[in-house]
Amino acid sequence: MKTYRIKAGAGVAGLELHDRPSSALGPRDIRVQMRAVSLNARDLAFANGTFPNTPDHSLVPLVDGHGQVIEVGSEVSRFAPGDNVITTYYPHWEEGEIAPAKVDISLGVQVDGTLCEERVASEAWFVRAPAMLDVHGAATLSCAGLTAWNALFCAGGLKPGASVLLLGTGGVSIWALQLAHAAGLRPIVLSSQDEKLEKTRLLGAKETLNYRRHPEWQDEVMRLTEGQGVDLVVEVGGEGTLARSLQACRMGGKVVVIGRVAGGGAASIPPGALIGGAKQLQGITTGSRAILEDLCRFVDAHRIAPVVDRVFAFGEARAAYEHLAASRHFGKVVIDVAG
Amino acid sequence: MKTYRIKAGAGVAGLELHDRPSSALGPRDIRVQMRAVSLNARDLAFANGTFPNTPDHSLVPLVDGHGQVIEVGSEVSRFAPGDNVITTYYPHWEEGEIAPAKVDISLGVQVDGTLCEERVASEAWFVRAPAMLDVHGAATLSCAGLTAWNALFCAGGLKPGASVLLLGTGGVSIWALQLAHAAGLRPIVLSSQDEKLEKTRLLGAKETLNYRRHPEWQDEVMRLTEGQGVDLVVEVGGEGTLARSLQACRMGGKVVVIGRVAGGGAASIPPGALIGGAKQLQGITTGSRAILEDLCRFVDAHRIAPVVDRVFAFGEARAAYEHLAASRHFGKVVIDVAG
Amino acid sequence: MKTYRIKAGAGVAGLELHDRPSSALGPRDIRVQMRAVSLNARDLAFANGTFPNTPDHSLVPLVDGHGQVIEVGSEVSRFAPGDNVITTYYPHWEEGEIAPAKVDISLGVQVDGTLCEERVASEAWFVRAPAMLDVHGAATLSCAGLTAWNALFCAGGLKPGASVLLLGTGGVSIWALQLAHAAGLRPIVLSSQDEKLEKTRLLGAKETLNYRRHPEWQDEVMRLTEGQGVDLVVEVGGEGTLARSLQACRMGGKVVVIGRVAGGGAASIPPGALIGGAKQLQGITTGSRAILEDLCRFVDAHRIAPVVDRVFAFGEARAAYEHLAASRHFGKVVIDVAG
Amino acid sequence: MKTYRIKAGAGVAGLELHDRPSSALGPRDIRVQMRAVSLNARDLAFANGTFPNTPDHSLVPLVDGHGQVIEVGSEVSRFAPGDNVITTYYPHWEEGEIAPAKVDISLGVQVDGTLCEERVASEAWFVRAPAMLDVHGAATLSCAGLTAWNALFCAGGLKPGASVLLLGTGGVSIWALQLAHAAGLRPIVLSSQDEKLEKTRLLGAKETLNYRRHPEWQDEVMRLTEGQGVDLVVEVGGEGTLARSLQACRMGGKVVVIGRVAGGGAASIPPGALIGGAKQLQGITTGSRAILEDLCRFVDAHRIAPVVDRVFAFGEARAAYEHLAASRHFGKVVIDVAG
Repeated sequence: MKTYRIKAGAGVAGLELHDRPSSALGPRDIRVQMRAVSLNARDLAFANGTFPNTPDHSLVPLVDGHGQVIEVGSEVSRFAPGDNVITTYYPHWEEGEIAPAKVDISLGVQVDGTLCEERVASEAWFVRAPAMLDVHGAATLSCAGLTAWNALFCAGGLKPGASVLLLGTGGVSIWALQLAHAAGLRPIVLSSQDEKLEKTRLLGAKETLNYRRHPEWQDEVMRLTEGQGVDLVVEVGGEGTLARSLQACRMGGKVVVIGRVAGGGAASIPPGALIGGAKQLQGITTGSRAILEDLCRFVDAHRIAPVVDRVFAFGEARAAYEHLAASRHFGKVVIDVAG
Repeated sequence: MKTYRIKAGAGVAGLELHDRPSSALGPRDIRVQMRAVSLNARDLAFANGTFPNTPDHSLVPLVDGHGQVIEVGSEVSRFAPGDNVITTYYPHWEEGEIAPAKVDISLGVQVDGTLCEERVASEAWFVRAPAMLDVHGAATLSCAGLTAWNALFCAGGLKPGASVLLLGTGGVSIWALQLAHAAGLRPIVLSSQDEKLEKTRLLGAKETLNYRRHPEWQDEVMRLTEGQGVDLVVEVGGEGTLARSLQACRMGGKVVVIGRVAGGGAASIPPGALIGGAKQLQGITTGSRAILEDLCRFVDAHRIAPVVDRVFAFGEARAAYEHLAASRHFGKVVIDVAG
Repeated sequence: MKTYRIKAGAGVAGLELHDRPSSALGPRDIRVQMRAVSLNARDLAFANGTFPNTPDHSLVPLVDGHGQVIEVGSEVSRFAPGDNVITTYYPHWEEGEIAPAKVDISLGVQVDGTLCEERVASEAWFVRAPAMLDVHGAATLSCAGLTAWNALFCAGGLKPGASVLLLGTGGVSIWALQLAHAAGLRPIVLSSQDEKLEKTRLLGAKETLNYRRHPEWQDEVMRLTEGQGVDLVVEVGGEGTLARSLQACRMGGKVVVIGRVAGGGAASIPPGALIGGAKQLQGITTGSRAILEDLCRFVDAHRIAPVVDRVFAFGEARAAYEHLAASRHFGKVVIDVAG
Repeated sequence: MKTYRIKAGAGVAGLELHDRPSSALGPRDIRVQMRAVSLNARDLAFANGTFPNTPDHSLVPLVDGHGQVIEVGSEVSRFAPGDNVITTYYPHWEEGEIAPAKVDISLGVQVDGTLCEERVASEAWFVRAPAMLDVHGAATLSCAGLTAWNALFCAGGLKPGASVLLLGTGGVSIWALQLAHAAGLRPIVLSSQDEKLEKTRLLGAKETLNYRRHPEWQDEVMRLTEGQGVDLVVEVGGEGTLARSLQACRMGGKVVVIGRVAGGGAASIPPGALIGGAKQLQGITTGSRAILEDLCRFVDAHRIAPVVDRVFAFGEARAAYEHLAASRHFGKVVIDVAG
């Protein structure tokens, strides 16, 4: 079977296609024929060597993936051949609170990922794909979708009607927008491009802000919220935006910090902003299999169609990486494995 | 009646004793004969002009106070003459979530405080003093006690058996230690002086750490918690300690940030510490009247005796301020108004 | 000004129209020209003398009401003439947890209600009406709407995607259906009439059940939820349905019990159903002003149009009561005060 | 090795001692030499055939047990020979929310239990014993201790200072008393015997009530709580006490219903008691392995010594059952396997 491999830090040019024999199947394993995968910022960071604590090894990249079960081991109980599945982000985090032993490995960083024709792993590493999703949409839940859900409903604990500020139009933010809309929240979206903001209106954004026109965008957020600030900020921007996000957040509100930080720099936080405002800053990192199952249930019930920016063929994987790196996408960048 | 007054930024030398006529009593007011008051770091900051957003005016300083009701207005329903009361920190925050209109004033900063022989205010500004406390102890709940309770049980949401790291031996930390001990938590105390650490052992500290001997004290905390880190840090130290506090906190744990930061500087936080560890940083500012009532109930039930470092006579108010400024105290600095 | 009055237990025939002088306005009062009011089961019970602990007195009935402020007292700070307002259910329950002193009075039971041309009361008794609602819709939030919101999002604590079973098509159930739909829940509705069930489909019911065709409807609920049971039941039926509701609820799920029970009888609950299933049964009674404000914010943001079954003119109040008593309505029964 | 076996419904007389070969050890199994076990009401019910849904088979009874690991399978990672362990109640409920698949089996009902010299099972079925406990005390956590902890801190969610009413002096109630005392709660104990109430005072009961002297004990509870009622009732009594427990509970409070109800009858609950008082009734059934680990951590930190009523020798198992059935115990009834 064909598979890509890459060495941490080798750059996109280091992504190579190989032909490898199929893996043997253990008693608790399933064999999945991959159909589609999608890229996340963390995959670029792994390629570029900027992902924190990256092991210095070569592996199959990517974590997001959707496929069909084609063979099951003798002790497998949750799946049968023909089932459609998606990957989990942290295979050892099945449920409950986060803990070091649960997040020790994730696909495409510590262990082989999904950019291959066939993946063999324990059934515990997969969940059933939402029935209503097409092949490409289903390949976008395990990282960006899961992170967005966790930010809004687990870490954020938002009630219907709450306001949420979304920074930019990357994968997590667009997922958060679609989920927020379907769950009766009030999403406000920030971007530098009017045409992207237009699109977010169609997806349910109640308000939009162009930060080129409003460099002091936190003041605009206050204005849009009658001087209160938003209940939650889903902060993906890193050190450049954190102080403004805290200001844009209401007294007693929360900023959920996710994703990677480009330069790895430290953000300077005025403690007074936390104390006087009784605000919270919470880091999250994707989520458990149980949270992913909640997301799948919701996506199915509300027939949410994930926004796919562009689909590349399996042979165009490098181009897909470069498209993501160019940061002009709106929604997810997908690779069709069978394409 | 005799009362101290001070102008914001006038320094301790600016604290002056005056003789003023008694205030008139409105229909919803009570007249309280003050018996004891205590000092907090915010009172020093007000005197020194370093308290954030301090109005440039002169007033009766201090917020912590205990006294006896000697007269009640015609519409007063909660108190009768003879009742012992203590002050609330934010008179407009009766209960529920924090909001700007609830924390618009606090005693000794925006409005007259407690360092006087007689205080007239709405009955809504007071709660019944715990029956088991002596006069001096009762004067230490409204700021430090309330903050400690909020940090541990409201913001912190700790369950019995959880570990909590307390920085230093100031008013909030010692209150937190006594509350944590009585509530079945596992307190770990950090200080630079062995004799103070000895005293915290008597008050219930399970572990103590001298940060002079262990400048990398976050590593010691990890060692004491089998490599896990603590469930909660009550962070009073400010920019110098925040990064270490985050490291000393377990994955998924929380750092509650309180008090003001002396230099007013900004703390630099590596976002990766939040994200990878799924940690939370939460600012708090004292609490509501309802939270103070919970504290009073607990203090009574467990006969907690607040640690009073030293009691000054009413005429020695300046000396009391200077004692606090010298930072050699262990527990609260009290002024006996009748003394 | 014209006002209806009724004596507890006098029956619908005891509802009488009077002409009374306008009330004087206290410094914290507002004068509201009522525009529309709506009926709730509790109003029928008051008329019939079956409301628990009903005082034996005569008063202006009803609690739900919408009107315009036409005069404000000298100390009023939240409203100005021209503002549109709705009533609160328990005027003394502003926020925070329920407590006896907060629910000591409600309009139309202990104190005068809304079925009158003009109502004078403290500004604390009102909240701003949602801007997007018409006059009749705005008159339906304070009892049924508030109860539905509390059941789903406060007591229920439901996350998006959760399933909720709604019994019947009365005011609370239809409100719960509209809120559940807008908040991304999965509502299942139970009724005895197919035409009503049809209508609930249009309002967002994902599944419907006719309990005449399925007397063992709890088994159908299990079937519709893949053998799991629903996450929440909003139980308005009383002793006849409680045992089935518990069975229809998933392990670890919750049944929120609301409203009064017609016969006043006691429901027999097999404790094993609670224990083995780790289920919860929670009573609620409408909610606080703060919760009502959350509801108003949500109704505005999602442009929810409350379902009004029929609007009666002010002079037809008895007919409105009788229409409610006949139990053939779908949604709320409204009286247009100006009509 | 020697083991007892019993058939469901065979009565205590049906308890028989056998000699059986040691079980084979699978790769994920551990072999535990049992040292002490303890009895719970559910074990009597199993013997008497009154346990709900009891399978009609013969097995090794009891679930509570403590022993030492003497052999580990090749894939075991959590334990080594020499470790002291205790059993979990539901071997499949490792953490997270309750679900049917997690509580499908428990020791001594669906699968072999602990009343034997040697037990072989997956390492997932055990947790490390608290280091501070003696052999007999350690045999009392897995059922009664776990249930008490869940009732107070998971289902109950109590904050320090909250009041809790404990019915009787059986295993769960005494465990709850010791935990409540160590966690700064205010326990009130109800019993029919003054000498038992005396003992509960020594263990930390703040108030005690003899229900023979006060048949209307709910009125006494109201009196002891200044007319408010308690925050939580740990209800073990069943249909005879449920209505009174609800009355003794404060507005907005909770009754946690545990254990089985002897007669299997249904309790009649006036829904008005739930609704008007906004009260909750929550069933629980022991808890997960993660909750048991929290309990172990707490027991160690606070050096809680479980109250053991009497220790029987291994050969006296029938006498131990009969002692429990006589209901004269105070605390747990233990069998020393090596004794």
